[in-house]
Amino acid sequence: MHIDILTLFPEMLDGAFNSSILKRALDKEEFHYNLINFRDFSANKHKKVDDYPYGGGAGMVLTPQPIFDAVQFAKEQRHSKPRVILMCPQGETYTQKKAEELAKEDHLIMICGHYEGYDERIRKHLVTDEISIGDYVLTSGEIGALVVVDSVVRLLPNVLGNVESAKQDSFSTGLLEHPHYTRPADYNGMKVPAVLLQGHHAEIDKWRKKESLRRTFERRPDLMNETTLSEAELLLLKEIKSEKK
Amino acid sequence: MHIDILTLFPEMLDGAFNSSILKRALDKEEFHYNLINFRDFSANKHKKVDDYPYGGGAGMVLTPQPIFDAVQFAKEQRHSKPRVILMCPQGETYTQKKAEELAKEDHLIMICGHYEGYDERIRKHLVTDEISIGDYVLTSGEIGALVVVDSVVRLLPNVLGNVESAKQDSFSTGLLEHPHYTRPADYNGMKVPAVLLQGHHAEIDKWRKKESLRRTFERRPDLMNETTLSEAELLLLKEIKSEKK
Repeated sequence: MHIDILTLFPEMLDGAFNSSILKRALDKEEFHYNLINFRDFSANKHKKVDDYPYGGGAGMVLTPQPIFDAVQFAKEQRHSKPRVILMCPQGETYTQKKAEELAKEDHLIMICGHYEGYDERIRKHLVTDEISIGDYVLTSGEIGALVVVDSVVRLLPNVLGNVESAKQDSFSTGLLEHPHYTRPADYNGMKVPAVLLQGHHAEIDKWRKKESLRRTFERRPDLMNETTLSEAELLLLKEIKSEKK
Repeated sequence: MHIDILTLFPEMLDGAFNSSILKRALDKEEFHYNLINFRDFSANKHKKVDDYPYGGGAGMVLTPQPIFDAVQFAKEQRHSKPRVILMCPQGETYTQKKAEELAKEDHLIMICGHYEGYDERIRKHLVTDEISIGDYVLTSGEIGALVVVDSVVRLLPNVLGNVESAKQDSFSTGLLEHPHYTRPADYNGMKVPAVLLQGHHAEIDKWRKKESLRRTFERRPDLMNETTLSEAELLLLKEIKSEKK
């Protein structure tokens, strides 16, 4: 997969791209990326990329020309029909399902604005997707792009060490993950549940399933509406509800 | 505000913290931060911070001791009662409201795991808040911490250049922002709406309010349920709905 990121602050991204899993994915050539400073594409003699909003008001607006031209450049480099993704609070709320969808693509172009609006023509005539990573405001699209890149790249083949890891994630199963414990069995009086120490695998599986259901039921009941539970899970859920009374 | 971030990959964060608005906030001393590698606190002779999960299964689990001790260290440094925030997919979904709440604190400690589980005793006995930035899986808590820090720091006094900017944001008003346009008025045949060029301020305000409502109604009807609309806004919404027929 190739990812182009249009940004005015490339130095925000290099640190994260060259650490940990993203670095491993780069080293394995499972993806490569290019940070494109769209200021370089500005036809303005002062290399300006923004201007005052028509109609007045606070803040500046990113002007269409540099971004249209930088996207055109990125497309021509690869003769591809990429997804062109605008990072913005008005976009579709990002989910694991969207990450899985984007992980199937060969080429992504991501556009990162910076505490400013985008000229609406970019939104209407240039991009294929508008993504918001959540209902909060950030100073920059770069952080959102980092979220998308990280969540997508970890789904590419051979990136995660253990294939099982991705399948058991929260959101991939439709439920939140069960609690985890490791040594010591007693840490300053805080103890690991006995069932996990006894090595009875069927009991451990049942405990984990139940605690996963309990956590989801208590914290994110909205997720349960989107999941089809098995009969065994429905029975466990009934137990959980009766324990709460 | 002081922010301590417990991380195994401090190099992921430095680039973002030293760019753009976060850099400006640091320069103005509106906040300071400390990246604490909790591996340094491991009592294990090989400086291990994780171990196999009790009960078996894939992946490793972050062990309690280094994280408990690093948090204790951070607290003692400032004699404070900080919020201790665990970045994890099982946490409360992060929102602008939570950002506003955290922006009132003097001291935050954030704990970033890395493609591994946390020992449940960290969750139960050490942290005050568990935050998830959205319904997707990331390889690391560092990216989530970056989201929280950025969204909180921009709300601190004197950080954003224009005080108005923060108030008109998407999510702060309860509605998505209206479209923005800047020069040129005609870019390759793509034109700016005439109303914005005519300088009639009442008309411009009405257009913006209406387009903000339209965008929210079309893209995020869920947000409208949480907002109380004025009578003028309800009338505009009625217009929008009749235009769609």
